[in-house]
Amino acid sequence: MPHSPHFIDHIQSCLDDFIDKRHTILADISADATPLITHSREFLRGGKRFRALFTYWSWQGITEISGTNSLPSAVAYPSEPEAVDPANSPNYSAILQVASALELFHAAALVHDDVIDNSDTRRGTPAAHLRFERLHRDGGWRGDPAEFGRASAILLGDLLQFWSDELFSDGIHELSDPAAARRARAHFNQMRTDVGVGQYLDLLEEHVWGEAAHEEQLERSTRVLVYKSAKYSVEAPLLIGAALGGASAAAETALSAFGLPLGVAFQLRDDLLGVFGDSAVTGKPSGDDLREGKQTVLIALARRTMPPAQQRAMDDLLGNATLDESQIVQLQNAIRESGAYESVEKMIEDNVERAQRALHAAPLGAESVRQLAALAHRVTQRVF
Amino acid sequence: MPHSPHFIDHIQSCLDDFIDKRHTILADISADATPLITHSREFLRGGKRFRALFTYWSWQGITEISGTNSLPSAVAYPSEPEAVDPANSPNYSAILQVASALELFHAAALVHDDVIDNSDTRRGTPAAHLRFERLHRDGGWRGDPAEFGRASAILLGDLLQFWSDELFSDGIHELSDPAAARRARAHFNQMRTDVGVGQYLDLLEEHVWGEAAHEEQLERSTRVLVYKSAKYSVEAPLLIGAALGGASAAAETALSAFGLPLGVAFQLRDDLLGVFGDSAVTGKPSGDDLREGKQTVLIALARRTMPPAQQRAMDDLLGNATLDESQIVQLQNAIRESGAYESVEKMIEDNVERAQRALHAAPLGAESVRQLAALAHRVTQRVF
Repeated sequence: MPHSPHFIDHIQSCLDDFIDKRHTILADISADATPLITHSREFLRGGKRFRALFTYWSWQGITEISGTNSLPSAVAYPSEPEAVDPANSPNYSAILQVASALELFHAAALVHDDVIDNSDTRRGTPAAHLRFERLHRDGGWRGDPAEFGRASAILLGDLLQFWSDELFSDGIHELSDPAAARRARAHFNQMRTDVGVGQYLDLLEEHVWGEAAHEEQLERSTRVLVYKSAKYSVEAPLLIGAALGGASAAAETALSAFGLPLGVAFQLRDDLLGVFGDSAVTGKPSGDDLREGKQTVLIALARRTMPPAQQRAMDDLLGNATLDESQIVQLQNAIRESGAYESVEKMIEDNVERAQRALHAAPLGAESVRQLAALAHRVTQRVF
Repeated sequence: MPHSPHFIDHIQSCLDDFIDKRHTILADISADATPLITHSREFLRGGKRFRALFTYWSWQGITEISGTNSLPSAVAYPSEPEAVDPANSPNYSAILQVASALELFHAAALVHDDVIDNSDTRRGTPAAHLRFERLHRDGGWRGDPAEFGRASAILLGDLLQFWSDELFSDGIHELSDPAAARRARAHFNQMRTDVGVGQYLDLLEEHVWGEAAHEEQLERSTRVLVYKSAKYSVEAPLLIGAALGGASAAAETALSAFGLPLGVAFQLRDDLLGVFGDSAVTGKPSGDDLREGKQTVLIALARRTMPPAQQRAMDDLLGNATLDESQIVQLQNAIRESGAYESVEKMIEDNVERAQRALHAAPLGAESVRQLAALAHRVTQRVF
């Protein structure tokens, strides 16, 4: 554990320690296995860590008011650093491991996601499958480098999934309250099923769109957004944190009332960035969602208000992996003119407002409310 | 729970119940998600269940002699059915769930494995990715059916992994001894890392072979066999079962001394079947390992004794996905003539003998020794 007072540094350190131990295990099997470690490390650096932060501040918020946690108020970026003394809270190490496990899980999900989407860039650097493909090319090995890359990334994602589960189990095992451990695991289980199903429905939409009526398509796109992202990225980390703190059912409901609209707003922002975002901000090529043909709420809203000829023109371009810059601009303009951009901005605003109202009504400690409010602002404006 | 006295029927029933509950969860999200359930069910039917049986008889063997289990001797195929009364053993339900979780994990591994190997057939029926590909074709959907199939299978494998972990956790949570639960989880964790790394090394061998000297290649192929299969398929299920029964470290060592050589023999048999096997027995096309270019111990041994010209002829054909029947026969003959077939048969015999000796020296109940000996015979002769 470094001497930093920042929670996110503790997360990095927890992940580094965990991977160091796996490095030893893998190196004992074969030096050939070490690329699995090298790439794990790279994918576990950086990232916004907001899943871990939601877990942490939710736990803090619950324990602050129940008086079970005497931690002076641990510190999340960007507030002022204050000393965290883990010895003050017997459960701090458990929370740290669980929060790190969610980051590990997310890294696993991204590795598989990039294989599924044939996405070559992640956080501005090559996706895992491309790194293994390069290893193959550099070695001048036999067979198809791209196939080796994809297969290796599937296995790397699997390992990261196993390890996230391992770290999660280690964490809840250290909790002093076994009922809290069980509840946290139940939320973790539900999160994994939700996101797996959400990803499948997302994939399905890329292949079946164009058949549903406008309202039905909007409903389908909203369902994907809720399961693949809102629940997974925001609500579940909050509920896991709350469970770790021994939250009541009422407190969990209050956290859902905050987390679900916030998660919706978060993903709507992501959808806007996927179409209009600057690649320097997103770490993905501009207009990436258009090339992938993602059937987002934004697209469903745009299609609903466009004249039929423009709809057809948009549909002809969507999902074409070879769209050039001018076609991307053409689509961006059409979506903007449809009014969908503004509608989505308005939806984000409404959802953030609803989330903030729910947050202030939730039975959480004052410092945690302040931190969660700041976090809510950051994840929906992407000011990370 | 059905009224059958057979343990393997209880396994099927446990898996069916588990999937029924996931069906409810998925159907509540969207009817579109149900193919994930349909295919899960299909992949969880049949199979040899020997991982579950190793777990069961190892647990029985330990508890029989420690007197913590008053079960009259539950029943595994093909011995005579006797009544199992779960009420007699407070941990029976825990063992059943853990053993079922290993079968669920195996189904997950096979789904990803078939994507990685581009393998179209599994247990004589279409692999998961082909089933999703067919769903796409039948629906006349947009985009590439094969890509949809592969992406869906990655997600299905992920879900099955999450679920295996969920069922495993449910199982050990029911154990009366928390130390046994921790120990079982440690073995489960190790098993998952071992098999993930073993699969990566296996994949690597398909791409880097031909560079190592004969002895080094044999060592590399043996390492893949040990991690991908011997530990995963036999040793780990035995150790998990032993841990569930509260086995001592000495008892675990004794079970490893049985399980590891047996696992080696099991995989050597699999390697022979992968080259010479009848597709009616293996559920895979004949000569499948040759088309995939698997660098098995069998191949390493064959190469070592072949004259250089024949080596080159074999190497030119290995890993060619389009090998025809006559080329397969040509390779089969060359391998047989090299003496490698006989050498592998001898290695199987030696390993089985070593395993049986270790089994009879292990501190296990007599009935379990009898059952494990029969199981050892079946998995190395494939008389299922």
